[in-house]
Amino acid sequence: MKYIDLRSDTVTLPTQEMREAMYKAEVGDDVYGEEPTVRKLEEMAAEMLGKEAAMLVTSGTQGNQVSIMTHTHPGEEIIVEENCHIITYEVGGVGYLAGVQTKALKSNKGVLNPADVEKAIRPKDIHYPVTSLICLENTHNRAGGTVTPIEIMKEIYEIAQKHNIPVHLDGARIFNAATYLKVDVREIAKYADSVMFCLSKGLCAPIGSVVVGTKDFIEKARKYRKMLGGGMRQAGFIAAAGIVALEKMTKRLQEDHDNARFLAEGLKNIPGINLDLETVQTNIVMTDISGTGMTGKELSLRLKEHGILINDGNDFAVRFVTHYYISKKEIEKTLDAIEKIVRQF
Amino acid sequence: MKYIDLRSDTVTLPTQEMREAMYKAEVGDDVYGEEPTVRKLEEMAAEMLGKEAAMLVTSGTQGNQVSIMTHTHPGEEIIVEENCHIITYEVGGVGYLAGVQTKALKSNKGVLNPADVEKAIRPKDIHYPVTSLICLENTHNRAGGTVTPIEIMKEIYEIAQKHNIPVHLDGARIFNAATYLKVDVREIAKYADSVMFCLSKGLCAPIGSVVVGTKDFIEKARKYRKMLGGGMRQAGFIAAAGIVALEKMTKRLQEDHDNARFLAEGLKNIPGINLDLETVQTNIVMTDISGTGMTGKELSLRLKEHGILINDGNDFAVRFVTHYYISKKEIEKTLDAIEKIVRQF
Amino acid sequence: MKYIDLRSDTVTLPTQEMREAMYKAEVGDDVYGEEPTVRKLEEMAAEMLGKEAAMLVTSGTQGNQVSIMTHTHPGEEIIVEENCHIITYEVGGVGYLAGVQTKALKSNKGVLNPADVEKAIRPKDIHYPVTSLICLENTHNRAGGTVTPIEIMKEIYEIAQKHNIPVHLDGARIFNAATYLKVDVREIAKYADSVMFCLSKGLCAPIGSVVVGTKDFIEKARKYRKMLGGGMRQAGFIAAAGIVALEKMTKRLQEDHDNARFLAEGLKNIPGINLDLETVQTNIVMTDISGTGMTGKELSLRLKEHGILINDGNDFAVRFVTHYYISKKEIEKTLDAIEKIVRQF
Amino acid sequence: MKYIDLRSDTVTLPTQEMREAMYKAEVGDDVYGEEPTVRKLEEMAAEMLGKEAAMLVTSGTQGNQVSIMTHTHPGEEIIVEENCHIITYEVGGVGYLAGVQTKALKSNKGVLNPADVEKAIRPKDIHYPVTSLICLENTHNRAGGTVTPIEIMKEIYEIAQKHNIPVHLDGARIFNAATYLKVDVREIAKYADSVMFCLSKGLCAPIGSVVVGTKDFIEKARKYRKMLGGGMRQAGFIAAAGIVALEKMTKRLQEDHDNARFLAEGLKNIPGINLDLETVQTNIVMTDISGTGMTGKELSLRLKEHGILINDGNDFAVRFVTHYYISKKEIEKTLDAIEKIVRQF
Ligand SMILES: [Ca+2]
Ligand SMILES: [Ca+2]
Ligand SMILES: [Ca+2]
Ligand SMILES: [Ca+2]
Ligand SMILES: [Ca+2]
Ligand SMILES: [Ca+2]
Repeated sequence: MKYIDLRSDTVTLPTQEMREAMYKAEVGDDVYGEEPTVRKLEEMAAEMLGKEAAMLVTSGTQGNQVSIMTHTHPGEEIIVEENCHIITYEVGGVGYLAGVQTKALKSNKGVLNPADVEKAIRPKDIHYPVTSLICLENTHNRAGGTVTPIEIMKEIYEIAQKHNIPVHLDGARIFNAATYLKVDVREIAKYADSVMFCLSKGLCAPIGSVVVGTKDFIEKARKYRKMLGGGMRQAGFIAAAGIVALEKMTKRLQEDHDNARFLAEGLKNIPGINLDLETVQTNIVMTDISGTGMTGKELSLRLKEHGILINDGNDFAVRFVTHYYISKKEIEKTLDAIEKIVRQF
Repeated sequence: MKYIDLRSDTVTLPTQEMREAMYKAEVGDDVYGEEPTVRKLEEMAAEMLGKEAAMLVTSGTQGNQVSIMTHTHPGEEIIVEENCHIITYEVGGVGYLAGVQTKALKSNKGVLNPADVEKAIRPKDIHYPVTSLICLENTHNRAGGTVTPIEIMKEIYEIAQKHNIPVHLDGARIFNAATYLKVDVREIAKYADSVMFCLSKGLCAPIGSVVVGTKDFIEKARKYRKMLGGGMRQAGFIAAAGIVALEKMTKRLQEDHDNARFLAEGLKNIPGINLDLETVQTNIVMTDISGTGMTGKELSLRLKEHGILINDGNDFAVRFVTHYYISKKEIEKTLDAIEKIVRQF
Repeated sequence: MKYIDLRSDTVTLPTQEMREAMYKAEVGDDVYGEEPTVRKLEEMAAEMLGKEAAMLVTSGTQGNQVSIMTHTHPGEEIIVEENCHIITYEVGGVGYLAGVQTKALKSNKGVLNPADVEKAIRPKDIHYPVTSLICLENTHNRAGGTVTPIEIMKEIYEIAQKHNIPVHLDGARIFNAATYLKVDVREIAKYADSVMFCLSKGLCAPIGSVVVGTKDFIEKARKYRKMLGGGMRQAGFIAAAGIVALEKMTKRLQEDHDNARFLAEGLKNIPGINLDLETVQTNIVMTDISGTGMTGKELSLRLKEHGILINDGNDFAVRFVTHYYISKKEIEKTLDAIEKIVRQF
Repeated sequence: MKYIDLRSDTVTLPTQEMREAMYKAEVGDDVYGEEPTVRKLEEMAAEMLGKEAAMLVTSGTQGNQVSIMTHTHPGEEIIVEENCHIITYEVGGVGYLAGVQTKALKSNKGVLNPADVEKAIRPKDIHYPVTSLICLENTHNRAGGTVTPIEIMKEIYEIAQKHNIPVHLDGARIFNAATYLKVDVREIAKYADSVMFCLSKGLCAPIGSVVVGTKDFIEKARKYRKMLGGGMRQAGFIAAAGIVALEKMTKRLQEDHDNARFLAEGLKNIPGINLDLETVQTNIVMTDISGTGMTGKELSLRLKEHGILINDGNDFAVRFVTHYYISKKEIEKTLDAIEKIVRQF
């Protein structure tokens, strides 16, 4: 049975075109620097993001962690948003791998206040760790796919430069942000020293993320990637699908956003379901279903019987994610099913 | 010139009785387990705090960090108050040494909300670090020497036990807390698995803090202390002063609290100085002098000319700390001087 | 131009059958535990090695490092052979990631002396790190693909068990060892608590290695793999090639060994080239070409003109590796070319 | 009962003059930079060793570990002698704290071969950790207090400089080395970028070691010392004894060496006791008593009945250490006792 899978955009399977690209991929030994397809992907990624160099990694977590390791030294402190992916979903890697402390700031729906960032930078004092990195996340996953505006990116980047502190952008879904902002992705990337973005998720590649930055940064980062075991041999298969992702899938994300909007508006009309339409900017819809009397778990079990999968988060917070394999028609089906379930409960 | 030194209780010099105890101290090689004076101090400390065992360390930072290292494994997460000493003044040791991530919670004047603590404990999930320690601070330094009530300690400890998570108490000034609460210090210590407290600060010993806990915990902690270089040979000199601190100085702290109160009430009457009398519970007075038009730095420079030292913190937040070497008369002098300075500014 | 590539067995490209398996691979989201092909590979690997559970990793380095992280705690010590892959080629990960010290032992052509291992285990003492892991490597890469006999594996394992210390086997080329020893690979694996082996290298898969061990061990290891960024989504493409590697390629390695032997005997007859035939047990031939007056770099440049690639190691030590894409005829060509080059030099 | 304590020079108690210096010590708050006695000790130490700056630490372990942390980054590799104090007795701190791998070299009685050091420096390669520190130990404890000659120090230092790698000297007993070499201690220290030496051990101070180096190095090191908890408040008491140690005790070490020599020659004449007189250069005598039929443990138990303490090492290796509290007469008594015990066994 084929489910309508709204759990995450990570569930996306590769397209037929990707499978074919993988099948025909010209490959070599990447550790010997002889991987033509990986090289092509990395050059394409650097070019698209407007950076000097790029490096393929096996996951967003690896991309973020290697970037933090490369920018910082153990015993330093990094500034992060309090619900960011880096400290929420990366298994405590920040402490284990980079050995840095985190200064976690509150945000307004995923958007940091530049003044808070500046205030969080530590003055020089023997008691204090040195603040050595600012991490942003755009779009912001746990805030519901919200977008940090260009002006805020710019303002934070200028503060960072004034204090000689690099900025790393967790841009797992940066193409969704660019689509929402109707700008070239470079306009976002230019306000960060390093950017990680995912080929999987909304772009549908089966595996892989990319880190971009200066040549020096990427050269240092390659060594940390090797240490974490991310140095692969014939990685061209992964890169081949990634090239299709970059060429084809980055341009169609508005459709997912439209579907998310359509879903959000429909859900808002169902009694007992609450959501903040203002945060529905990209492909994620965060809802509070407490008014229905059901927990997320209960709703997800009932929806499964209708052939629909959702993440059964904690309590009453339910997240829906649209992607390439979700059509408007399937959204309609989903709304119908939820309405029925809620009515009958 | 002898200054009225209100910067901190760390500036306290040892008493004459301490000097004599050090002079006559019977010493041996502590690494060989042959230090009679260290052993005596450790037994006394364990007994006073109601724990099985104790270990002398060279500083509060060492005591806290060794405790965290002993309770946790790298890659885990610890729950802390957002302005606690451990993440503010310990040079980022939590990331460098223990390799743990921090979940920093807001508090009400240094007092954590037990419900927030429980909510911060991570469920089991491959993406999440394991929550492996809860850290409390009583009295709370940056909140102004505020005291966490026994019932709150108890409530948090019960939550911790329910989740099988140990509690570490940064009790640098635990004797001030006990004095304020009018309880034996054991009544506080019993709601923590390990406690660090300082022999220096208000107790006037020149060097040293103590960690207490179970025998097993202390045995493991000794190994980490040795690794950090805290294993000393003839440490009996330090212990000798510490024994005087525990016997004599723990009983006289009400005097410091009375002086702090007297100072706080006087300061509150000076135009332009603001403070929250409710937080003046022990020997620390936190003020906001922005109404005077002076920064802390400006006030501290002017007070120095009157023979008075205060910490020139950032901006307008000025901290005063009372201790053994500050008499009521010196508080009066200080109030006179500040009043004059403010009036003339 | 197609080179005769004797640099390493990592240069092997996937077979046509692997490409087809990848093309048709049924994939899902491995982080949701929904990857049928990864699951199949992991079950097959566990079964073949005789262990409870298995985990796909992106490289041998990741497999070794995750295993060490899982077996040990920072501040402990592990026993290794002084030229093993773990401390030679894994970017210092042992210190950075696991935070353990290494006790490096000399060996006899890659084979450790059990008595040395036992002597290296630390007694309990507050000054000493705890010995918490013994690492073996079979076949041993830098010793020239040499095989540790079953009896030695067993003897070391019994010592380890006596002292309650786990054994990790870097079995990157364990199927070569089993082929040489004419035993089922389980007969080797049973003398280790965890084993890492590679699907790439001689088995020709494009990417991937596998760690096997107890269920508990693998469950813990999965969390560390996720932290290092080795948790992938639709990893079934990698697994699909790996299944072919396990089913087909593990049985044909004698051919590579025969070719290596043939190459070694030929090289030995060339004046100026020295090698120890006793160490030519599997698919690696280590030579000393100092007698030819050429450095490795010089020889490799000349061989390249003949369409032959070799690793230009340091100085005069030259390594040749045979694999699936090297036929006996190509060995003959190589010998002819070298003989000619040496004669003309 | 007062024992003749030959276990170590760490057992030395402070002299009466030290006690008096401590009693009268002028102290202040070192974290505020107001410790006159600590400042005096640090200036004296820097001056004596010929370095720009110095820092008091609580132990040799802390001095060595902070130095390694300051010179290196995690993931790098350091070159050490295989039996040096740093990897033998410092609780695995090198992995836990600095996160570096060790390349351990064999030596000739504690003296490294400069050619081996140069060969151990890693070339640049993505697989390799960067070699970032060379550690020496002079005198070498486990080799029996042996001295590395000036020319060897110089040769290694020149290799290090050629490769831009700093040298750290564990000079716990550097004054013993200088005494043996009949040179000013600066002549040794100048061939290292940082030196740690102990005030305790042969110099009899109760607590404390010192690290010397450039101003920049010491400034960075102070931050790591604070992180490890080595930042103390009224540390002048420790420093006061240290000043006496430097002024008085550094000049009398020849006496301890003469006593060690006298002891060694006597022991050599006892049947069943073997030792290498060539290694008896300073205040340590390493013996092999296997010829007596007794283990070290057995001999130590018997000697204790005669009022003599020795370290009961493993098996048959027995170490004797002379110091300020051991006179020639006590050596005679010791020799008599051992002779008697051996004869009667
Ligand atoms: Ca996908
Ligand atoms: Ca770094
Ligand atoms: Ca004090
Ligand atoms: Ca630990
Ligand atoms: Ca391959
Ligand atoms: Ca001593």
